[in-house]
Amino acid sequence: MTQLLQARQGQITPQMLEVAEKEGVAPEEIRCGVAKGVIVIPCNVKHAGLKACGIGRGLRVKVNANLGVSDKASCLEKEVEKLKAAIKSGADTVMDLSTGRERDVIRKEFIKLSPLPVGSVPIYQAAAEAEEKKGDILAMTEEDMFKAVEKHIADGIDFITVHCGINQASLNVLERNPRLMGIVSRGGSITAAWMRKHRRENPFYQNFDYLLELCLKYDTTLSLGDGLRPGAVADANDAAQIEEMIVLGELVKRARDKGVQVMVEGPGHMPLNAIKACVELEKTLCHNAPFYILGPLVTDIAMGYDHVAGAIGGALAAFFGADFLCCVTPAEHLGLPGVEDIIEGVAVSRLAAHAADLARGKEYAWARDEALSRARRELDWEKQIALSLYPEKARFMYREKNPDAREGEPCSMCGDYCAVRMDKVSFSRPS
Amino acid sequence: MTQLLQARQGQITPQMLEVAEKEGVAPEEIRCGVAKGVIVIPCNVKHAGLKACGIGRGLRVKVNANLGVSDKASCLEKEVEKLKAAIKSGADTVMDLSTGRERDVIRKEFIKLSPLPVGSVPIYQAAAEAEEKKGDILAMTEEDMFKAVEKHIADGIDFITVHCGINQASLNVLERNPRLMGIVSRGGSITAAWMRKHRRENPFYQNFDYLLELCLKYDTTLSLGDGLRPGAVADANDAAQIEEMIVLGELVKRARDKGVQVMVEGPGHMPLNAIKACVELEKTLCHNAPFYILGPLVTDIAMGYDHVAGAIGGALAAFFGADFLCCVTPAEHLGLPGVEDIIEGVAVSRLAAHAADLARGKEYAWARDEALSRARRELDWEKQIALSLYPEKARFMYREKNPDAREGEPCSMCGDYCAVRMDKVSFSRPS
Repeated sequence: MTQLLQARQGQITPQMLEVAEKEGVAPEEIRCGVAKGVIVIPCNVKHAGLKACGIGRGLRVKVNANLGVSDKASCLEKEVEKLKAAIKSGADTVMDLSTGRERDVIRKEFIKLSPLPVGSVPIYQAAAEAEEKKGDILAMTEEDMFKAVEKHIADGIDFITVHCGINQASLNVLERNPRLMGIVSRGGSITAAWMRKHRRENPFYQNFDYLLELCLKYDTTLSLGDGLRPGAVADANDAAQIEEMIVLGELVKRARDKGVQVMVEGPGHMPLNAIKACVELEKTLCHNAPFYILGPLVTDIAMGYDHVAGAIGGALAAFFGADFLCCVTPAEHLGLPGVEDIIEGVAVSRLAAHAADLARGKEYAWARDEALSRARRELDWEKQIALSLYPEKARFMYREKNPDAREGEPCSMCGDYCAVRMDKVSFSRPS
Repeated sequence: MTQLLQARQGQITPQMLEVAEKEGVAPEEIRCGVAKGVIVIPCNVKHAGLKACGIGRGLRVKVNANLGVSDKASCLEKEVEKLKAAIKSGADTVMDLSTGRERDVIRKEFIKLSPLPVGSVPIYQAAAEAEEKKGDILAMTEEDMFKAVEKHIADGIDFITVHCGINQASLNVLERNPRLMGIVSRGGSITAAWMRKHRRENPFYQNFDYLLELCLKYDTTLSLGDGLRPGAVADANDAAQIEEMIVLGELVKRARDKGVQVMVEGPGHMPLNAIKACVELEKTLCHNAPFYILGPLVTDIAMGYDHVAGAIGGALAAFFGADFLCCVTPAEHLGLPGVEDIIEGVAVSRLAAHAADLARGKEYAWARDEALSRARRELDWEKQIALSLYPEKARFMYREKNPDAREGEPCSMCGDYCAVRMDKVSFSRPS
């Protein structure tokens, strides 16, 4: 039975307890959120060793790291290294987006090694198998698509992205309302191309109830993919994106009715002025389902710095109510991310998530900032560094820039002109 | 005669013409903005080789890089290297914050080498001289302070930060309303400490008219320092900060009345939810004077990633109306920034400034993003890279991640599963 069905029956599961403890809220509050569908706890019953992670209303903003091989780059060893780096950097979940030949091994290895929820996009599996067996991605059948979902779920995947919102209606809206970048979601473009080629409805939309049955089996959370997300700031909040959001909202209700945990995916490229409307629309159109967003990237031109473009947009989106940030790495738009890219991507996403938690008035966030600032005004370097987001990096930089560093002494930035010390000497402040 | 006085007399100066051309607006619009004081063009008549840069209403958001030696680190050669890196990275202005012994040489060298406006904080000069001559920063006299201002102005400094808003009244408000981090502005803490020690009013506040006379001489823009800026998110928009802003607003009027170009400095640490109020208050209390802000850093705990914390806050502040972003580097709170820190700081600040320009509907910003996205949908890598914010970095990363890179082919991120190509093949989009 899914977390949602148990919550609805008034049961507080061990996973809800775990989430409640981590978040510092009452277990009943978690149960209530799960029952309403405003909180999800992705936890496939077959994923041994999983630590429960809650996503949604009232909880810490969460961060996902995308991993996985493409058909052009990386290998199992490299991906395992990235997985470990993502976990160490503080990601809350990971997704395996592998399309390359090692994908089955990698997925199983991730589930085995990761205490974090693991997500995937099963249509990549179906596409890659069709490519390998028939030489054509689009030669996959409806059965292939559902088999791929079944396979991932049976392996223990905690949440699956399925692009159910691309249907004939939303594609018609897209065609009537041309946009700059068309479809930039990988799964979305495959789904749309398949529909166009076979002149058929999207099987995941048409047979949505069957998809829900599969999800029910091991309590896999359904993450409704945003196949029509904007791939350029010019396309943000356009007709196609919002039409798809309307469809996703309808599917949210159907999933909840069946007892399937469900969240909704969003953004892509979006200028700062468009973010608030997008988040608020998702909350109304999709009935407060947890909102899982990529970026948003606040400009199209940040190649090499897209992680920062994504952190800017992510911080703002999460402040406005997005629940779950998908990391963008410095490699976005340039190639498959390496280990260092994953570390940087997770670092700035966590920073964005924390900034949003602060702005949303979360007490633990304020307590941490205050504790660090108290250490800062005492020039207590070791304590400051220990309380910072990435102590290892901060410590390395501090030592490098202050070869003769001493506790209680100013750093090399201001030296004897340190404002903190100057102010302390001239005026004793209350503690 | 200052740009402001000339503008008020209806004259369009060569500097206004230059700004108008760079910004793509009518010269009369620039003249009008300068006359009203909502635009400043910092340009000391003694700064040979200066390229005019406009800051304020309706103009591109500008970026400043802070440079200069402390008494603990760096040297002339290193600072010249940083200056060149800042110029190459696209900074619009630089400030020399030197306190170390080489400060006079560095300031002169910066003015000689920089086509960008150069700013400084003359009280550091006075403080350093007092320290060197009398062994005590606070032993400087009122005369020493004004002499330092005179010296910098005579050297050709284009804008000077003077912490005029710290007066007995604002310090009283600070003392009645205790805050977590006290005074974290270097110049602010020196000024306050001097006032407390000598039981005297701030000379720059008390003799503000004399300061204005000095600025008038070579048309030095006065940047009213925010000595009481918040140094912790807990202190954002507190009584002391806002009281100082009220004082600065009064001084803005007095400066304009005398014909002195003036801008106002702001932020420091500030959670996302506080930024809008801060920017809007500056605009009303300070009569739409150009707003020059540090960060804001949206959390206290980002040591090593403070440039990103600053880019997040800066993008949002500029979207809400701030005009001029002071870079924060990864070295903030850790030590004096090196060359690489300056490059990273400028890069992410420019990204933030561009994101704000987009969100504010600037046509050139939208045109650039659109051009890059058009190249992206053609998988025209060379063109995409050329149009990106930092082509050199993007090209390096692209080649590293795609050793067999070919024009028109997808990158290693998605390979054969590239959404852009998939969508193009399955559906011809309008151009």
